[in-house]
Parts: sequence; structure tokens; C-alpha cells
Amino acid sequence: MESLVNPYVSVDCVLLGFDGEQLNALVVRQSGNNGEDVAGIYKLPGSLINLDENLDEAAQRVLKQFTGLSQVNMLQFKAFGGPDRLKNPEDSVWLVRFYNLNHHIDRIVTIGYTTLLRIDRKMRKLEGGYEAQWMPISELPRLAFDHSAIVDEALKAVRAKATLDVTLLFDLLPNKFTAAQLRNVMEVVLGITLDVKNFHKKLAQMPYVVPLEEKEDGVNHRAARYYKFKKLKNKHI
Amino acid sequence: MESLVNPYVSVDCVLLGFDGEQLNALVVRQSGNNGEDVAGIYKLPGSLINLDENLDEAAQRVLKQFTGLSQVNMLQFKAFGGPDRLKNPEDSVWLVRFYNLNHHIDRIVTIGYTTLLRIDRKMRKLEGGYEAQWMPISELPRLAFDHSAIVDEALKAVRAKATLDVTLLFDLLPNKFTAAQLRNVMEVVLGITLDVKNFHKKLAQMPYVVPLEEKEDGVNHRAARYYKFKKLKNKHI
Repeated sequence: MESLVNPYVSVDCVLLGFDGEQLNALVVRQSGNNGEDVAGIYKLPGSLINLDENLDEAAQRVLKQFTGLSQVNMLQFKAFGGPDRLKNPEDSVWLVRFYNLNHHIDRIVTIGYTTLLRIDRKMRKLEGGYEAQWMPISELPRLAFDHSAIVDEALKAVRAKATLDVTLLFDLLPNKFTAAQLRNVMEVVLGITLDVKNFHKKLAQMPYVVPLEEKEDGVNHRAARYYKFKKLKNKHI
Repeated sequence: MESLVNPYVSVDCVLLGFDGEQLNALVVRQSGNNGEDVAGIYKLPGSLINLDENLDEAAQRVLKQFTGLSQVNMLQFKAFGGPDRLKNPEDSVWLVRFYNLNHHIDRIVTIGYTTLLRIDRKMRKLEGGYEAQWMPISELPRLAFDHSAIVDEALKAVRAKATLDVTLLFDLLPNKFTAAQLRNVMEVVLGITLDVKNFHKKLAQMPYVVPLEEKEDGVNHRAARYYKFKKLKNKHI
């Protein structure tokens, strides 16, 4: 039947990282096989799927390739598959070069995955090898393909999940954190404003947040107490 | 690159219908092009995607084909794409016959959609044309492909959404309904048990449920009051 379509299938990963102040996404240069920059444009880390892997495995392969991390829970949040995903000719040219194909690709259906990461020293080091870069969500340039829309949908999905269960945000914070850091991460991810004065009261109502004896060290404002999360059970996005 | 895979992409629809007592799914016979029954097995309504349509459009086409309904909101809940989806040779044989292909299909990635429907007289009439049938979720036989797992995932997604917002269950009930009917639909879909005695108190706390003057007619138990939903805004799954 002529009218059926036999597209390629890819995964694209919206890796969201919190650096203590802002929510970032990991983006990579859209460069050719030989590392040559095609269009000065960034894209999400992603890949066409391989013959022997399922969708989750493809997402884990991409995560590993770009961050070195493995066995991090990822949320499959949406599939994107309109015929207009490849409407930009530069994206098509890039695909053929990058995957070393001898034909044009008409259509790619991509499956979006997302996860929440803490940008620590190790995650900072990523900025190099694959021309990967953490960019604040609020400052993202237009991304290749429909990747800007994919980031938006990932944020919606994460917001919905974390509104239901705040403990999912644990993965974004360091092991010990201040009340201000927790408030900030909640405000940034949930898109809400929390009252500074009442936040300590709110904190006291969170059975999964435990105050530590330890306080900040070497700060030139009043040292804030550290808190840690009590793992109720192993929950991730 | 040899190792890349170029699968077909389909949509499969988990149409969940409430008949006043039980939650049902619409299933169709896995029959050939000529209507011949291949394996006496049922499957979900679904289709490979066409050249000119996006994923949502393909899901709407399937909905229309099997129910006659159009413009019903559907939730895209998950993509399924493992290489083992076609491990049953009978499913592969069916695909080639049904789509009149001259080659074997190695892999199909399918995108799952779901929606909540009220099984009224019109929906009952479906049981005919396409050998479609409403079957209680609790009595579903093994379905073709991985469709049994797809139904399970749809139920999980619907449960998560409706737990967050009970008003999504409105679509399952008739325009006027009794307290017992609402309790039943909540119990069945959310997988919870609600206290019968306290349910009227609970009902009074639901600003979106309005009591009517009208009561049941011609029943041989004490006639129950009817209620209707007050549309806060147009929300669907």
C-alpha cells in the first residue's frame, strides 16, 4: 500500500539539570560525522534506534554517550511524529551526513525521554567532548528539528509529575541543601512562587525533609542550616 | 549504517468504555483483508500511520473508523517499540495479509492512545461492522502482539490522571447519574474502595457535582436522586 509510511524512529533526551540556581537542558552542536559544524545550531542529545534495542535501551545509550551515566531512570513522556518534523532542509542534510546514509530521510518519529540531574562537578565536565553544553532553559536558542517544542513538552510532563509528588525533585539537589535551595528548585521546576517567610513552616510539614546539625560554612551572610532528604522509597521521575 | 532500524509506526487505541457497571475496552477480531479470521484472537483498534498524517491524526482516524466518533480528545500515553513486539509468527503473517504487503515486517513501533467513553446505545451498535466488541477489562483474553501490556499501561495512565482530577471521569457517565453510579465508576477506574455510608458526604464536597430534583423512575428499590456534572471547564483525558 503506497500510502503507508515507513519512517525512522529515534529517541531524544531532555536532560534537565539544576545548577543550584537555574534549570538547564543539555544541548549538543548539530555537527557532521567529521565534527564539522553544519549550521551553528544546537539540538537535543538523541539517536536513531538500533536493530537490537528497544526504546528505553536507546534512551539509556544516549544518556550514557552524552553524560557517562547509566541506569538513571528516565521518563518517556511523548512521541513526536508529524510529517513536518523535517521541514527544515538543513536538518535533512545533517541527518544524511551524520548517519552516512545514501538516501534522504523523509520522516522520523521520535520518542521523548526526560530526567532530572544535579549539575555537579562531573556533569560540568561534559562541556567538551561532544560539544555538549548545559544551557539555562530560559536562554535556550531555537533548537534543530522540533526540539524546542520537545523541551516544552518535557517541562510540562515534569511539572505535572512533580506537582503530584515533590519528592521527585530530590534528584536535582545536592545531598545536603539549604531551605533556600529547595525553595528555589520548587519555584523553578513547578513554576510557582513560594512565600519566603512561610517556607520554614512548609518545610516542617514535609516528613521527607530532615534538618541536619550542620550549617553553611564560610558564607558572608547568616549561615543557613543544611537539610537532607529522607528516602521514603526509591522514587525517580 | 547497517545497525539502524527503519520500522513501521502505528497507533493503537485503548478505548475505555463504562457501561454503568464495568469498565470495558473495545477490541476487534484479528482478521485478514477479506474478513477471514486468522487466529481467533482479538486486538486493539489500530493502524499503521499514513504518509500525510501525524500521530494524533492517525489516532483520530482509527477512532472514527471504529466508533464513528470524531474530535474526541485522546491521551497519547506511551510508545512501545521493542524488537520482540512481533515475536509471534501469527501476528507477522496477519500484518502482511492485512496490509497486503509483499515483504515481511520486522519491527513496528506503536504509539498508544486512550480515551474514556460512555457506552450508550450508539456505542453498543458498534458490535457488528468491524467485528468490534466491548469486553470487560477484567475478562479480556490474551490480545495479539503486546496489546495486553498496552491495555495495562493505558489503565495506569488513566488512573494517574483521574486520581489527580476526578472530573476527567465525567466522560464515562450519562448526563444524569446516581450517587451509586459515580461511586462505582470511581471505584472501578481508580481501583479504590469507597465507603458507601460516607459517600453522600463526599459528594457534597464536590463543587462540580450538582443534585437534581429528578429521581429514578420505575425501579423496585427506593428511587435514588439524580445528579449532574457542572462543567467547570472543558476537561478531558
